[in-house]
Amino acid sequence: MRLRNVKGATDIINSSKYIILNPKEFRGNYKDIFKNNNPIYIEIGMGKGNFIIENAIKYPNINFIGIEKFDSVIVRAIEKVNNEDIPNLKFIRMDADDIDEVFNKEIDVLYLNFSDPWPKKRHEKRRLTHTNFLIKYDNIFKNKKRIVFKTDNRKLFEFSIIELTNYKYKINDISLNLYKDDIKDNIPTEYEKKFSSKGFPIYKIDVEK
Amino acid sequence: MRLRNVKGATDIINSSKYIILNPKEFRGNYKDIFKNNNPIYIEIGMGKGNFIIENAIKYPNINFIGIEKFDSVIVRAIEKVNNEDIPNLKFIRMDADDIDEVFNKEIDVLYLNFSDPWPKKRHEKRRLTHTNFLIKYDNIFKNKKRIVFKTDNRKLFEFSIIELTNYKYKINDISLNLYKDDIKDNIPTEYEKKFSSKGFPIYKIDVEK
Repeated sequence: MRLRNVKGATDIINSSKYIILNPKEFRGNYKDIFKNNNPIYIEIGMGKGNFIIENAIKYPNINFIGIEKFDSVIVRAIEKVNNEDIPNLKFIRMDADDIDEVFNKEIDVLYLNFSDPWPKKRHEKRRLTHTNFLIKYDNIFKNKKRIVFKTDNRKLFEFSIIELTNYKYKINDISLNLYKDDIKDNIPTEYEKKFSSKGFPIYKIDVEK
Repeated sequence: MRLRNVKGATDIINSSKYIILNPKEFRGNYKDIFKNNNPIYIEIGMGKGNFIIENAIKYPNINFIGIEKFDSVIVRAIEKVNNEDIPNLKFIRMDADDIDEVFNKEIDVLYLNFSDPWPKKRHEKRRLTHTNFLIKYDNIFKNKKRIVFKTDNRKLFEFSIIELTNYKYKINDISLNLYKDDIKDNIPTEYEKKFSSKGFPIYKIDVEK
């Protein structure tokens, strides 16, 4: 995605009630932020936030944390909700590489949506479903480990099926053309809305171990 | 597939040098039929035989056995090769249900191509990648168990990915659109040629345990 500069983005981000500015300080204690023991679902690479925001509104008894590394994108998510009051929603600006320094045995579900495919073989370790990331995710989950992944990128999806199953994740559900299945519960990302409307297949896998 | 009656099919089948008429008698001793110790690859549901015949011609140091239950289809495969001499090719007319009564620890690779999808949930046990079949296949493999499966049926493919990985098969390779990948070594079935030429995706998975 090509990113425009957003004027004053840093100010908007730093002053938002949704932002957790010092996420490593809460490692192992994220329930304190939400002041309840509800499950915590996170999305790595939330982009402009449609998916995580709609989830938070739809499921008030689950806590949602959206993670995004780019200021110019996360600010768009903040602008959508800054005038709302959604107590079960937080955002963190960080790199996915640091995920296991931020969470410790406290996450119930990890969402990955339309992650960067890093198509070149020499960049495959940067893909968020690479085994090296799966190893990091192990430490963030509370009990059961559950990952739900959507993409329009066929090669990334093929790679991800292999990585996830090799790492002993069991498939709960898989769709190779989501919009031809029953998707009444599906919450789309901004990118997904645009892409699926053109008729390209959206791939989805839901795995657990 | 709708099958035409083939006049005299039974005679053609019973008198062909390619047919193994009493397959259960060779259980555990299929190498005697080929008079060598080369690997044995089988295809369950070979249809008109293009895939298994082309394989046998291309790989003379592998023995190939095509299995098909319908007279009216197997006779088409026989007609293609009756005037040839392909020593590493045999056919068996039988139901896949009996597969473990016919082979015993002697198969190296099992091909399943465009198997009947049995789309109704109540028929799912008839799908050739159902766990009940995977259990039967366990007994036919010599050492490593390897299954290579192609289909154009999305729901059957999704089902098969789940069944195979739940049964601890590891994915060697997967393609969700075979004809958009490098397929220089691909040997198509009759059905595959027709279907892929219309631009529909062909799915392929190669698994091993």
